[in-house]
Amino acid sequence: MAEHVAVVGTGLIGGSIALGLRRSGAAVSVVGYDNDPAAMKAALDIGAVSAVAASAEEAVSGADLVVLAMPVDQIPVACDALAGAVADDAIVTDVGSAKVDVVAHGEAAFGGRFAGGHPMAGSERHGIGAAEAQLFDSAWWILTPTQRTWPAAYRGTARLAARLGAKPVAVDPSVHDTLVARLSHLPQLTASALVTTAATAGDRDALLGLAAGGFRDVTRIAASNPDLWIAILRSNREAVLEALGALRGRLAWLGGMIEAGDWAQLREFLDAARRARLDLFAKPTFAGTPVALSTMIPDRPGVLAEVTTAAGELGANIEDLRIVHSSEGGKGRLELIVAGADAAERLSSALATLGYRVERSGVDKDV
Amino acid sequence: MAEHVAVVGTGLIGGSIALGLRRSGAAVSVVGYDNDPAAMKAALDIGAVSAVAASAEEAVSGADLVVLAMPVDQIPVACDALAGAVADDAIVTDVGSAKVDVVAHGEAAFGGRFAGGHPMAGSERHGIGAAEAQLFDSAWWILTPTQRTWPAAYRGTARLAARLGAKPVAVDPSVHDTLVARLSHLPQLTASALVTTAATAGDRDALLGLAAGGFRDVTRIAASNPDLWIAILRSNREAVLEALGALRGRLAWLGGMIEAGDWAQLREFLDAARRARLDLFAKPTFAGTPVALSTMIPDRPGVLAEVTTAAGELGANIEDLRIVHSSEGGKGRLELIVAGADAAERLSSALATLGYRVERSGVDKDV
Repeated sequence: MAEHVAVVGTGLIGGSIALGLRRSGAAVSVVGYDNDPAAMKAALDIGAVSAVAASAEEAVSGADLVVLAMPVDQIPVACDALAGAVADDAIVTDVGSAKVDVVAHGEAAFGGRFAGGHPMAGSERHGIGAAEAQLFDSAWWILTPTQRTWPAAYRGTARLAARLGAKPVAVDPSVHDTLVARLSHLPQLTASALVTTAATAGDRDALLGLAAGGFRDVTRIAASNPDLWIAILRSNREAVLEALGALRGRLAWLGGMIEAGDWAQLREFLDAARRARLDLFAKPTFAGTPVALSTMIPDRPGVLAEVTTAAGELGANIEDLRIVHSSEGGKGRLELIVAGADAAERLSSALATLGYRVERSGVDKDV
Repeated sequence: MAEHVAVVGTGLIGGSIALGLRRSGAAVSVVGYDNDPAAMKAALDIGAVSAVAASAEEAVSGADLVVLAMPVDQIPVACDALAGAVADDAIVTDVGSAKVDVVAHGEAAFGGRFAGGHPMAGSERHGIGAAEAQLFDSAWWILTPTQRTWPAAYRGTARLAARLGAKPVAVDPSVHDTLVARLSHLPQLTASALVTTAATAGDRDALLGLAAGGFRDVTRIAASNPDLWIAILRSNREAVLEALGALRGRLAWLGGMIEAGDWAQLREFLDAARRARLDLFAKPTFAGTPVALSTMIPDRPGVLAEVTTAAGELGANIEDLRIVHSSEGGKGRLELIVAGADAAERLSSALATLGYRVERSGVDKDV
């Protein structure tokens, strides 16, 4: 039987998800809906969706998996509005770039069936015209399960990511928001501030003559779509303010060093930043041979958060995960794929101290 | 008769200048000197210099053109030290990335024979091992003439840049320093601050999972050499502090908008930044057919600064320039190449109001 997926919001991300699913070879029907009739029609024309709906409610009714892919500031409202329209056994996820507020609304509307997500892929372009089936290939796809998340909801969302070629990774919603504030939202604001600080300092020819490659790199993202960014910044207001405060404090501290001529301390700072940058992107992480672990777990909400949190604290990333339900009911077998023998060993020990009995098993590539 | 060039400091920039000159086909001998004997030997081994000297004094004596290519904080000292060793008719230039202090020392030591320069090319690597003859190909080469600069010194330095494939452009030294503070030195400090702000917010795996392409771009320059950057920041301390203050003020203003929920104003700011970024790198500047202008000028210092400043104020960039001395003495013909008929027209009018009688002439590609 074919799986029914509803994609609400057929822009760059929603359109790419739909297109990727349809091209993945899986038996899946994708119904699309977008407030913008032109975007919806384009999604149908390029074959991203197999059908369009007259409303978001109509799109989600009868779906096994609902993907909320509208701009992030519209997701909480959509959760509230669609609470009654989604089937009781359907899984709901989203693609918003801030998670605390979205997850709160998602869980209020759908309970444990909601599992928040944030695919780390995009494009400087936007809209269905820029959609492509390969957009998520090899990208990280952040999942933000909580104590309430049903294992099946996590699993279904992780499987969606994997089908599109992405690598799912679980992060706590508030940790996610703090990190994206510092890794994405703050750099965006800062790039825009740097451009305007420079642009007011001289005429275009002089600026262009003196703007080297570094300035191009640093300010590239300032050319992004302002409407999308307002939606993102609104949705992560607290964490963005906190990050902005941290940066301003750091710049004040740097100014103090320059003012005082404390070049030794400034050199130390630049060197620490250099090492942090090199370390961060030095090599692909999660390298190492995949190792599969499995353990019996009680089939209740919260277990998954417990396990993924333990893994996160150890830096042992879970590359893939599935839950095989026991025929006896009330129990299931959790299968985890971890990269590298070391990480697998550490995770086994940590789970053992939590009372789980962990076994190694073969890696089943078809999870 | 072969031209004699001395390059003091045979690192990435000095080595690349030497290599480019030797490969340019011009009859030129290049003598090199470096405080680091290994760097000097490497310059000789790769054929960047035709000979090495036992001291900087020995290298510059007998040279027609002296290029000071040591780290920028050592250039003022080098000017002071070499004042007596350079021939009275030799031209002296430098490659320092901050100019006010360097030009002051250069003029104190060499008078109008000194013309400051700043080639806008580099590499994340450094040292003679990274030197390449093509480093300056199609790059801007900023020249910072003042009222004291001899036309011959400007001309000789511009010709050096052109020989290496670079495009010379004249900017006032203090304007240069303000602009590079905002276009280069501030972005460098900010990229380092953004890296450390992010790196303290979570573990490496979570950071890496969430760090998208934008963060990579923004922070790429944070991996640069701290020692070079300390030298640069020291040399441009006042302008860097001013730029840092401007950025901090802007970030505080942005924080205020987010705090107040003034999304309309924030959107306007992001949109202005977006347009500034797109405009800045929208198209190559100085496009348009080259137009040659020529005018008689009194052969005295200051004339050149007057003309180049007038052009700069009009945004009419001088792509090339030469002075043909009159056989009568005391006068010369200044020939300018300007890109595009519009710019040529505006410059002609401006120079006319300054009392110069300007004629159009054919473009002589061999200037």
